[in-house]
Amino acid sequence: MTQPSTTTPRFDVVAIGNAIVDVMAPAHDDLITALGLAKGGMTLVDETRAHELYAAMGPAREISGGSAANTLAGMAALGASCGFIGQVSDDQLGEVFAHDIRAGGIAFDTPVRAGQPTTARCLIFVTPDGQRTMNTFLGASQFLPAEELDESVIADAAVLYLEGYLWDPEEPRRAMRRAIGAARAAGRKVAFTLSDAFVIARHGDDFRALIAAGEIDILFANEHELAALTGKQDFHEGIAALEQHVPTLVVTRSEQGAYAVSHGEHARVAAAPVDRVVDTTGAGDLFAAGFLYGQVRGLSLETCLGLGAVCAAEIIAHYGARPEADLRELVADLL
Amino acid sequence: MTQPSTTTPRFDVVAIGNAIVDVMAPAHDDLITALGLAKGGMTLVDETRAHELYAAMGPAREISGGSAANTLAGMAALGASCGFIGQVSDDQLGEVFAHDIRAGGIAFDTPVRAGQPTTARCLIFVTPDGQRTMNTFLGASQFLPAEELDESVIADAAVLYLEGYLWDPEEPRRAMRRAIGAARAAGRKVAFTLSDAFVIARHGDDFRALIAAGEIDILFANEHELAALTGKQDFHEGIAALEQHVPTLVVTRSEQGAYAVSHGEHARVAAAPVDRVVDTTGAGDLFAAGFLYGQVRGLSLETCLGLGAVCAAEIIAHYGARPEADLRELVADLL
Repeated sequence: MTQPSTTTPRFDVVAIGNAIVDVMAPAHDDLITALGLAKGGMTLVDETRAHELYAAMGPAREISGGSAANTLAGMAALGASCGFIGQVSDDQLGEVFAHDIRAGGIAFDTPVRAGQPTTARCLIFVTPDGQRTMNTFLGASQFLPAEELDESVIADAAVLYLEGYLWDPEEPRRAMRRAIGAARAAGRKVAFTLSDAFVIARHGDDFRALIAAGEIDILFANEHELAALTGKQDFHEGIAALEQHVPTLVVTRSEQGAYAVSHGEHARVAAAPVDRVVDTTGAGDLFAAGFLYGQVRGLSLETCLGLGAVCAAEIIAHYGARPEADLRELVADLL
Repeated sequence: MTQPSTTTPRFDVVAIGNAIVDVMAPAHDDLITALGLAKGGMTLVDETRAHELYAAMGPAREISGGSAANTLAGMAALGASCGFIGQVSDDQLGEVFAHDIRAGGIAFDTPVRAGQPTTARCLIFVTPDGQRTMNTFLGASQFLPAEELDESVIADAAVLYLEGYLWDPEEPRRAMRRAIGAARAAGRKVAFTLSDAFVIARHGDDFRALIAAGEIDILFANEHELAALTGKQDFHEGIAALEQHVPTLVVTRSEQGAYAVSHGEHARVAAAPVDRVVDTTGAGDLFAAGFLYGQVRGLSLETCLGLGAVCAAEIIAHYGARPEADLRELVADLL
């Protein structure tokens, strides 16, 4: 068992994730069909396919994204001290990503990578029902070098937050394994989001091994990912299969809200009301932001869930996965 | 007097304008003051100042802009056939601009320019009152080469639409002068938007000479630009000073709506209601889109104004100067 660290960490949370700019446009369902896209999912694409899809996309807007980076943007907006580790290239989208994350008050010191490939982008088709269909060109993001990971930064954060999407490319996976080791050696907590069923299909054994070894303190999943990880189609059977092995387990269920179990305590929250769902991009990321903010502030499990629900509701009411409204104001009566 | 052309043009309108990507972020008034910005205005900045301002800006989003390009985006959304002429560089923001304008159904064939400077961008600080404060780095936009202007394209459009902002840099000004000549030789109409009082301060004599020579068929101004151009502080005196020399004169008055006089006929329209003014960027551009669409469809002066008001109301209800809602649906009961 890891000893809790005695020093006060500089950061509430440091995250390792994809450094991505989202390219978002409204689209009708028939375009999703015509392009052969898996509606509601995330598909990795190469640069050629990214160009094809972009050519088929309507007028778009560019907003910084990346799952863990979105979570940090939410946490920083709530008042947490955050650091981000992720790889951009020395191009304009890389500048955009770096600007936006730093402008949100998040430390970001990963050296820029020169040359090809370009900074990662995610082409997001948003259908009239608010559902997002994501097509990610990972670009520079997958070349985050494991050797250059600064373990002292990991040791200096109360929580290390890892994005499952980034487990797929080899180099960042090695960086994340190193980071887990550094966090545990320093007595810090490790939080992990499973990100997508396809990641579990490819790396489920890794995740199950990490969980069995007690390396994950806080695990985020949606109900599909829970089923994929545990092999249990029944929601409560899935929870039961994991709760002994994960100190804090959080499962989001879209419009059914979210469920958490932590050290034997169970809690649930309804989805917070939204006038109109515009774009669900980032809903899970912002739920994690609210929940994790509650955790680092030592709030009750129920309050953590409530914070997650409010942050998720903010993000789905507009385009883009970075908060627009003042999150602190929105959550004021929960604190 | 120019003879009307006998052939049916390929385009309803071809515009020459800045090819700009807007970089927009909310900002409090105290930031506007601290940065020494002229609230509500447009200021040209060099690349160093652009970097300074970007560093001071909060998390932003990137949406294609440019005054005349915004107008075309609105016209194309209404159903007009449009072509755009403007200069981007071979960088990611240039790709974004080109994608967005083409994805809006607008022909855009100006060859990309290699190397420095980069594609133009406009850093827009949007204050809580919805007012926008713009800082434009013109970049590649000011190097639109006059020699390469394809006069046959100009001759093939019912209306040539010119952006006053682009009168400031020398090379595009020469291109626009050539285009006016080509349009008039082909018996097409020339529409011009004055863009900003600073342009009039620098080039008012040019504009007054063009108007006196009968080169401008449709002139767009706001009330400040009208005053700057005519030297008349009184609105109706300003109108009276110009109406003999401009076949169709359109003056926007923000929340007071707009006024037009065409061949002696006067009309006005109230501003269309908006739930909440989010961002006024593009209000004038989209007013021009609606008005000009009505003109190319041969609708009444009053209907043209009504179309302008509806399009302007759509654009100020959200971030960015490109339409989000279905403009055709919004104007359906005016057609």
